[in-house]
Amino acid sequence: MSTNLYGAIEAGGTKFICGVGSGPNDIGDKVRIPTTTPQETLSACIDFFKNESKKKTLAGIGVSCFGPLDLNTNSPSYGSITKTPKAGWSDINVRKIIETALDIPVAIDTDVNGAAIAEHLWGAAQDVNNILYITIGTGIGGGMLVNGKPIHGLIHPEMGHFRPLRHPKDTFEGLCSFHKGCFEGLASGPAVKARWNGEPRNLPADHIAWEIESHYIAEALATFICILSPQRIIIGGGIMNRDFIFPMLRKKTLEKLNGYVVSNHLLKEIDSYIIPQGLEGDAGLLGGIALAKSLDIANQ
Amino acid sequence: MSTNLYGAIEAGGTKFICGVGSGPNDIGDKVRIPTTTPQETLSACIDFFKNESKKKTLAGIGVSCFGPLDLNTNSPSYGSITKTPKAGWSDINVRKIIETALDIPVAIDTDVNGAAIAEHLWGAAQDVNNILYITIGTGIGGGMLVNGKPIHGLIHPEMGHFRPLRHPKDTFEGLCSFHKGCFEGLASGPAVKARWNGEPRNLPADHIAWEIESHYIAEALATFICILSPQRIIIGGGIMNRDFIFPMLRKKTLEKLNGYVVSNHLLKEIDSYIIPQGLEGDAGLLGGIALAKSLDIANQ
Repeated sequence: MSTNLYGAIEAGGTKFICGVGSGPNDIGDKVRIPTTTPQETLSACIDFFKNESKKKTLAGIGVSCFGPLDLNTNSPSYGSITKTPKAGWSDINVRKIIETALDIPVAIDTDVNGAAIAEHLWGAAQDVNNILYITIGTGIGGGMLVNGKPIHGLIHPEMGHFRPLRHPKDTFEGLCSFHKGCFEGLASGPAVKARWNGEPRNLPADHIAWEIESHYIAEALATFICILSPQRIIIGGGIMNRDFIFPMLRKKTLEKLNGYVVSNHLLKEIDSYIIPQGLEGDAGLLGGIALAKSLDIANQ
Repeated sequence: MSTNLYGAIEAGGTKFICGVGSGPNDIGDKVRIPTTTPQETLSACIDFFKNESKKKTLAGIGVSCFGPLDLNTNSPSYGSITKTPKAGWSDINVRKIIETALDIPVAIDTDVNGAAIAEHLWGAAQDVNNILYITIGTGIGGGMLVNGKPIHGLIHPEMGHFRPLRHPKDTFEGLCSFHKGCFEGLASGPAVKARWNGEPRNLPADHIAWEIESHYIAEALATFICILSPQRIIIGGGIMNRDFIFPMLRKKTLEKLNGYVVSNHLLKEIDSYIIPQGLEGDAGLLGGIALAKSLDIANQ
């Protein structure tokens, strides 16, 4: 390829953002497209890139996408959204539709795997290869890189849907439509809002909401550490914008592990082990660019 | 290397078994050495292989070892057991001691990672690359291969030590000395024995012990599926010898996931997705041979 310019799509349940660039601080043209029907939304994405392609050559396009996705490259439906509650989007092959329309190689992965790769390439985890990225916002998801590559497998991780040990004072049932009290059902933004009948951003720092929230996040982190042994944990998402929450959940994570996992990164340097995301602003689009770049690297 | 013969050590808390071979059904000489002091036990292992080396050339030795281990190849203590309650064994560099004494390349990994690689090479997971191996016996551990290689990272997975959601009828506190009610503390052989004050093998199939035990195993499997998305789950260990337990925990795992993870391997073919180990007899030693073989492959 004679270009290092890539297209990126941050494909979410409420909006698709398309952009062109090669890394942080150089995202050029961007467009925001509401998520309506696949026909309407994907056509608008395709129009954007057709127009961009007249101005410059794109080496590939990366789609950092809401899931669940079929990521099995041997599957006939590789690159599809599989079964989603989002009306009209089940079984839509986002990757194939875009690749066919534009005749440009298209990479697709979960939004959290895209974010993990972007943090590895340009953000807060450039020096390690086994990286966990978690987002705690409207939903909860996790992406894990092992030896620098995202975990796929049966499908891909769905880290928001395991069931954490409950906080003894929490009587809220949980609002996941599949599992009630899974991690997402108990600790996502909408769960906090429903439990306390108010916006999380308006709950004061000393509200028991944060004791309970940090309990669930710390249960999740202790669980992820036992199962995945990441070299660094990066947490993004709206809930993490409160500056007191990282110290709370670091302390609780250590309490829950109780000295069992012996590593100085955890025991002595936890402030640089469990950290906020390093990329800001266009982080979502950078996930897409990172995916497109991985495709390019894999093809070289 | 001009030989495909390997040495193997199955290094456990009560015994070390050493053997020589190249794969299933061809393990030749074997010796069983009690786990006493590192000096005594490792010297006996070294003597065994010195003697074997007079008869044949070994391409390498693999140690499938109890942990926790330092598996960071850049660490000065790479190949050591780190902090273990097993008296005298903390900070013992098993890999280095054996390699130095014998001048043969030595690979080391956790016993469960060794078992996962062996199942991938010769056992019940030859056709997939993302494989979870769990043992439920005196302790509980898990090894996960991603793209055919074991997960290392901060240290290595310690899957027995996450805390599962409790069974509502279970009042047993759990016996892990670090976490009380973690997976190992609630569902290992000694935990079942302590909860019911009797040997697990003597508890009848309709005893509530198995309802509770299969709850914890299914909670763990649902959690592992959400976090690791393995293409197959293999479970070994003494507790799994009761023939009714696989059907119970398969059913409960599906109930707990409640249709969220959409894959026919899980939803329609669970009898071939969650399965007993494929290797028997010398399975532990085969873990060591598999590790030695991986080292050899990596060096080619």
